[in-house]
Amino acid sequence: MKEARYFYVPNAAALNELPAEEAVHALRVLRLKEGDEMFLMDGEGNFYQAEVVLATAKKCVYTIRQTMRQKPAWSGRIHLAIAPTKDMGRMEWMAEKATEVGFDEISFLDCRFSERKTLRADRIEKIVVSAVKQSRKGWKPLVNPMSSFISFVENCPDKGRKFICHCYPEIPRTDFFTAITSALQPGIFLQNGLEAQKEHPSGAADITVLIGPEGDFSIEEVRLAMAHGFESVTLGKSRLRTETAGLSAVMMSQLARRV
Amino acid sequence: MKEARYFYVPNAAALNELPAEEAVHALRVLRLKEGDEMFLMDGEGNFYQAEVVLATAKKCVYTIRQTMRQKPAWSGRIHLAIAPTKDMGRMEWMAEKATEVGFDEISFLDCRFSERKTLRADRIEKIVVSAVKQSRKGWKPLVNPMSSFISFVENCPDKGRKFICHCYPEIPRTDFFTAITSALQPGIFLQNGLEAQKEHPSGAADITVLIGPEGDFSIEEVRLAMAHGFESVTLGKSRLRTETAGLSAVMMSQLARRV
Repeated sequence: MKEARYFYVPNAAALNELPAEEAVHALRVLRLKEGDEMFLMDGEGNFYQAEVVLATAKKCVYTIRQTMRQKPAWSGRIHLAIAPTKDMGRMEWMAEKATEVGFDEISFLDCRFSERKTLRADRIEKIVVSAVKQSRKGWKPLVNPMSSFISFVENCPDKGRKFICHCYPEIPRTDFFTAITSALQPGIFLQNGLEAQKEHPSGAADITVLIGPEGDFSIEEVRLAMAHGFESVTLGKSRLRTETAGLSAVMMSQLARRV
Repeated sequence: MKEARYFYVPNAAALNELPAEEAVHALRVLRLKEGDEMFLMDGEGNFYQAEVVLATAKKCVYTIRQTMRQKPAWSGRIHLAIAPTKDMGRMEWMAEKATEVGFDEISFLDCRFSERKTLRADRIEKIVVSAVKQSRKGWKPLVNPMSSFISFVENCPDKGRKFICHCYPEIPRTDFFTAITSALQPGIFLQNGLEAQKEHPSGAADITVLIGPEGDFSIEEVRLAMAHGFESVTLGKSRLRTETAGLSAVMMSQLARRV
């Protein structure tokens, strides 16, 4: 038997054939043949042990032998919304690392001081999928297209706690990690019950965090977010680049919510 | 006055002239002139407000007007010893990010399963210096040349707690973040006093952490490290690439030791 390999197949249980790109990898690179074992990940919490039942030049047909439902490794949803850096490479590595560490959703913000006003979300999606496979994540993070800061904060449907990280000393900030490691808010606790903390997804444990561009959010943007329920926070004393701040926020959220 | 600029000048207080590379930047890029203000960082806890007193084609002579001793942003020393990845780019970004986040020393290990057996420490040094300036760190992390794993663990002079991260389920592992956030060991406490935790450097709060190559440490390497006082730990459930594990270990240490 060849080394077991992982393929990302959205909706794998309803299909019986690898998507084109994954098929090329399976057939030409790994040279899988009929009878070989492989593992499929649907990005929605399921791994499948499957067997190749037909391998032609371009088609890799499978049968699922076993479904392995994954256990969430953290509670709640972790959503990072970030103003992309001018240098796309920095966003790409951040997306890769955040996926490895573990998060649920990434959004890109067009802010007042953004240097980058457009972004190819499909490139980020590819990197995220590759990192999901490499790090064997049960769930594929959602990658959203770019939206305006104002529209994001005004329409954000996320439950749980929302935060905006910024560097304005004149606006009181609490410490992000201290805030997310403190007990869940009593009101939310009562509504959702103690189990909420252990479920995925669960409103009570959800974290949404906004990271600004190289020149920070504008002070009006910070105030607007706060008016929409975002808590004003700092990531600590270090002066971090945008992409490092994004990854730090994900790592802190992960540490605070891991189960 | 031109925008205040930061220059890395080891031993700045004993000198009166920018090193060649920094002088080029000051004179040709920023076009500093006599009377301009600049800031010097000596990488050993001091920032200096200085004035250009002579600016020629190649020389930038200064006088120090004010010395600003920095306060440490974390207690103890954070030392990362890591087996470098085959792809040097991955080590370089890790060194940049770890510097931004804050750490004290990096060593490179030649391990049994290392894919990279040599490393240009001078390239890492350059990246670290650049990140020190960009993120305004008071102390420049020490960059050590590559050494063999065996020699490192047998001769490691570090005080405080030492850890080895690995993936062997047959060797009991505790959780790294839990271990470093637990109270300092009573024995060390008694020796160094409560203040030890607030000092920099202080043996009691020191953290040394080993991260293995893509193929992990060998089980013999893990056992050898444990025999030399390294605690067996895991960074959590995530499957992390080497460079992501290195950065995670630094971020966790930073969160546990920030003041």
